[in-house]
Amino acid sequence: MIHSFLMIGQSNMAGRGYRKEVPSIYDEHIKMQRNGLWQIMSEPINFDRPSAGVGLAASFAASWRLDNPKEEIGLIPCADGGTSLDDWAVGGALFENAVSQAKFAQRTSKIAGILWHQGENDCSPEKAEKYGDKFSIIIEGLRKELNIPEVPLVIGGLGSFLSEGIFGQYFASYPLINQALEEFAKTQANCYFVTAKGLTANADNIHFNALSQRVLGVRYYSAFRDLKHLLDPNHDEENVLATIYSRSYTKTEKIKLLEHEFAIGNIKPKDFLSELTILNQE
Amino acid sequence: MIHSFLMIGQSNMAGRGYRKEVPSIYDEHIKMQRNGLWQIMSEPINFDRPSAGVGLAASFAASWRLDNPKEEIGLIPCADGGTSLDDWAVGGALFENAVSQAKFAQRTSKIAGILWHQGENDCSPEKAEKYGDKFSIIIEGLRKELNIPEVPLVIGGLGSFLSEGIFGQYFASYPLINQALEEFAKTQANCYFVTAKGLTANADNIHFNALSQRVLGVRYYSAFRDLKHLLDPNHDEENVLATIYSRSYTKTEKIKLLEHEFAIGNIKPKDFLSELTILNQE
Repeated sequence: MIHSFLMIGQSNMAGRGYRKEVPSIYDEHIKMQRNGLWQIMSEPINFDRPSAGVGLAASFAASWRLDNPKEEIGLIPCADGGTSLDDWAVGGALFENAVSQAKFAQRTSKIAGILWHQGENDCSPEKAEKYGDKFSIIIEGLRKELNIPEVPLVIGGLGSFLSEGIFGQYFASYPLINQALEEFAKTQANCYFVTAKGLTANADNIHFNALSQRVLGVRYYSAFRDLKHLLDPNHDEENVLATIYSRSYTKTEKIKLLEHEFAIGNIKPKDFLSELTILNQE
Repeated sequence: MIHSFLMIGQSNMAGRGYRKEVPSIYDEHIKMQRNGLWQIMSEPINFDRPSAGVGLAASFAASWRLDNPKEEIGLIPCADGGTSLDDWAVGGALFENAVSQAKFAQRTSKIAGILWHQGENDCSPEKAEKYGDKFSIIIEGLRKELNIPEVPLVIGGLGSFLSEGIFGQYFASYPLINQALEEFAKTQANCYFVTAKGLTANADNIHFNALSQRVLGVRYYSAFRDLKHLLDPNHDEENVLATIYSRSYTKTEKIKLLEHEFAIGNIKPKDFLSELTILNQE
């Protein structure tokens, strides 16, 4: 049975890191949902916009796999860029879409956790004040609809780079959102807060860069595993990533990657067949 | 009210054409659904696999827009590569996902048509014989669930290149599928068949190349508009595409495209701001 995780929130959950900046993560036992079915995960997982790229879910899943080498994990991408808490209200399109996607996943998997990253679009003192109450209704609604009253919910902080870029004026209140998120996690059962301390952004100063997304995924997994808030970075983050990247591809993965190269026109039919023959003899 | 179209079938409906091989289509009044919401369409529309690319839906929509310059069109991508008719059976994940996505679309649009392309995965005499009966149950189920008993269903033929490539042996029976599809369309109300005559493929001899997908989209629209089977190519296909490509971008489109270039890191913050200022003064 696949252990599945629901991805919800806005662009930094969907992921805007540039793929060329980090080693890729590809593991036949890490799946993602498309059209209600599972397939091997590849990035972008959460294709909400043409600019979707590296998010935190891939390294979250790869960290999970280090501790669960004989199990499968599945990611259910439902995050949508630029969305506010109000956009996520119970009964709205985003909420209902997440419920419907999660229900498809429940046909063939057990939901093991909810991953949330959101708040950039609620950066004002007024909205920060209401964040906890609004978010609580959304999560309660989701838990009820999916009948998962106690699965861990991991939520992450906003980056301190937000107030520094060309759009910095819109994000001046980001510390209030971080406060609201942390407070929410500390007062709710089964909810864990993860710090974004030390993480950096793309040139837009809005989106975590690929490397920071990889680190953030490791942090999300650490909070999930320990059922504890992660208020300061762990010392072993880079080591965990190095271990993830050092994994060798299985035969199945090599064949799938070869098929992909052929599908996108990078290999000629003749070469594809001969390389496939070699792989099949491994 | 958006006029929406449901995209279902396998990889040649999702699209595997290479984007670099054709001019792009970008029109603020052509939308696509993501996470239950509409956004401006960009390719790949139907991101079922990492190899997803150009499909027929973009030029279908652009042809529709030539005749409906004051209206909006929305695409609902639900096709999934490598799937058989059995995979699309009523109650299965693909069918239910399509129903659920279409229902989200119905909140804010009126479904105006169904676009289907499938059959490569049913290329055997036995499966071809049962194609009509199986397909009829799927379409009937879909029409009932969505309460769209009479909207036009456009279905396209398979390419004659299928039997010629390195996987040609698996597709020897493709003419039987084309026969089944054509017969289905001729005996069902509100269903129109579109020929794939003359269309060509990527090097895999499985997937229509980008140019052929553009042409196929024009053909699908022609059948939809005239409510007639298209058994032979129209003579004006290339002209229609030339007209589509000659359209100038609106100010909104230029700004969105600039924002995308910034989001993917192709433009520095300073240059983004100065180009944005220029566009806003247009």
